[in-house]
Amino acid sequence: MQVYLDHAATTPLRAEAREAWLAAHEVLGNPSSIHGAGQAARRLLEDARDELARVLRCQPIEIVFTSGGTEAANLALKGLWWARPHGSDTVVLPDGEHHATLDVVGWLASADGADVRAVALDDAGRIGTDAFAAALPGAALATALVANNEVGTLQDAASLSSAASAAGVPLHLDAVSALGQVPIDFAGWRGTGTAGGGLAALSVSAHKVGGPVGVGAAVVSRHATLTPLVHGGGQQRGLRAGTQDVAGAAAFAAAATAAEAEREDETRRLSALRDRLIDGIRRSIPEARLLGDPVDRLPGNAHVLFPDAAGETLLFLLDMAGVAVSTGSACQAGVAEPSHVVLALGLGERAARSVLRFTLGRTSTAGDVDAVLTLLPDAYARAVASGARSGHAS
Amino acid sequence: MQVYLDHAATTPLRAEAREAWLAAHEVLGNPSSIHGAGQAARRLLEDARDELARVLRCQPIEIVFTSGGTEAANLALKGLWWARPHGSDTVVLPDGEHHATLDVVGWLASADGADVRAVALDDAGRIGTDAFAAALPGAALATALVANNEVGTLQDAASLSSAASAAGVPLHLDAVSALGQVPIDFAGWRGTGTAGGGLAALSVSAHKVGGPVGVGAAVVSRHATLTPLVHGGGQQRGLRAGTQDVAGAAAFAAAATAAEAEREDETRRLSALRDRLIDGIRRSIPEARLLGDPVDRLPGNAHVLFPDAAGETLLFLLDMAGVAVSTGSACQAGVAEPSHVVLALGLGERAARSVLRFTLGRTSTAGDVDAVLTLLPDAYARAVASGARSGHAS
Repeated sequence: MQVYLDHAATTPLRAEAREAWLAAHEVLGNPSSIHGAGQAARRLLEDARDELARVLRCQPIEIVFTSGGTEAANLALKGLWWARPHGSDTVVLPDGEHHATLDVVGWLASADGADVRAVALDDAGRIGTDAFAAALPGAALATALVANNEVGTLQDAASLSSAASAAGVPLHLDAVSALGQVPIDFAGWRGTGTAGGGLAALSVSAHKVGGPVGVGAAVVSRHATLTPLVHGGGQQRGLRAGTQDVAGAAAFAAAATAAEAEREDETRRLSALRDRLIDGIRRSIPEARLLGDPVDRLPGNAHVLFPDAAGETLLFLLDMAGVAVSTGSACQAGVAEPSHVVLALGLGERAARSVLRFTLGRTSTAGDVDAVLTLLPDAYARAVASGARSGHAS
Repeated sequence: MQVYLDHAATTPLRAEAREAWLAAHEVLGNPSSIHGAGQAARRLLEDARDELARVLRCQPIEIVFTSGGTEAANLALKGLWWARPHGSDTVVLPDGEHHATLDVVGWLASADGADVRAVALDDAGRIGTDAFAAALPGAALATALVANNEVGTLQDAASLSSAASAAGVPLHLDAVSALGQVPIDFAGWRGTGTAGGGLAALSVSAHKVGGPVGVGAAVVSRHATLTPLVHGGGQQRGLRAGTQDVAGAAAFAAAATAAEAEREDETRRLSALRDRLIDGIRRSIPEARLLGDPVDRLPGNAHVLFPDAAGETLLFLLDMAGVAVSTGSACQAGVAEPSHVVLALGLGERAARSVLRFTLGRTSTAGDVDAVLTLLPDAYARAVASGARSGHAS
């Protein structure tokens, strides 16, 4: 039996994306070449840009294709930092952000003097708009997740953007986990943003919506000023050099369009499956506790605290039975650390080592959920027993 | 008629690469996930790393997959710069380097105080080892092309690396245009390099050898110290964060292996086609002149100065007749500037606007060459006439 409930780590390539990728390779040419072959490639690229812009509700020229969400976040954050006006070195950083953000800001702090102003999460993982707004005045830039990739909590992206506009602080939104799950509205969120403040950049990734790995985009407002992360031949408004990956862009656009087309139906279907999973876990393991916002959460995300078990042990036991889940982000390169997101909810280190993240996606079925519900009580009992022996419970 | 003689800009995807890419997508999993699905993806990734390491003659752990040659050069150069010991801000930069290098060093100079020490090229585009060695003492880092992407001149990578070792200066080699055309020998070139000096990093790109666009690698010596360009989840020795593109890596490895397997045969075949092209041009247009080293050059590269014609006009006329060539690098995003490489050969701006680069690749045939030779005299005559009218000849 193979049950894959780790769609947040990566999700299967969609047929539409595969076809777009293969079709793009039938057109030979570098889109920066001025001959006819190059221009044919460029038309494919610009079609992809137009298509993705419709999904993200931005202008096509605002899309800067990157190698993924991590590069997009690096471009947005470092780009805004390097291009900041004199006078402020403050970066507003909510707790519980993705490592692609945390590690960038950490580097800017250690290597370049950034002064980090943290914003606490509430116990459901929400960034309070008031607390965020209070941290903004005088900052050089701010960042926030649209949806937390671990506990699934949705943030109020529109309000965070409005607060950044009001404070005149450029904002980066990490929408990697949100794309395809909740509506993305770059232009709407940006609203009254100015050259100096409001939503400046937004990061997305293709492989979270059934596109290929290695493709992503930063939406960069035409009014924002960023220093490039990757210098070179001046492609993409000079913001991101390198031969443009036409096939990757076409595949991303196809996947994002397909995900958006089925989003409302999938939200209903996945939310129901997710609630069936959560309810089933609660019935068989009453001490289990759903983390994150119980209502405003990603439709496919069930993030559960199993108080007396080590998450890693549970993960291994389920894996042996053919069920793939995670203890947190796959983006920490296999290192089993206590989740910094769970710590940010005000829970202790023991809790942060006792969680499992189940993420459902478009190939998930009721059978997958039932398989987990069948296996989990025994796995939990064994993990608790193992933990009692190894000292996890102490 | 479609004749594609711009293989240096991009070359068709190989069947082996397409198959490897598709096969990798049959394995669902993020290679950083610790469950079985993730580990299966990881095995594919590490197989690709091993395979590519055999082609580049480095250790597998030294390969850092990137989104392409431009990102690899950015990682190498900025990474060495940011991690440099105190005491030197000098960057040794030969003339005629690729824009991915030029623009990085230019940014380090304008934004971060790098002091550029230029090394002139001779009239064949060669970096003299003595001149290079003379520029090294006390430098923070140095860089050089293995093969010039415009005029095709091969550099003596082993001697440049030895000079860097002797001077204790870390060296980046840009091997993007060289891969698949000449042997790459990272370990051999590095030789007696130390932690502080010698070959530290080497950049390559997949789409120049029939892999997908959007994939590349920096070979980073285990002994070199680099600051990452892209921060995040700590993948790839902490040197390059982001979900690793297993399919891209597998496709790159397959393409590089195929290119390497046929390299010697293709060198003979393409050199003969190239010489047939050059000889034919000389016969019909006696004033045309081959630029770059006549002997030590990329086998598929014919870079020709047409003294009384604008290269761009020639390009358009050939394009109208179904022949795709270029005036220089496609990496300058379609901007028709005089080639800085031709300027670096000691020729003037008029010459730098009067060149065409023909680059042959594995799909090139004698028929392609003959088609160009048939079309060129008339195109040349028309370009000269057009130039006389527009003032190009003045």
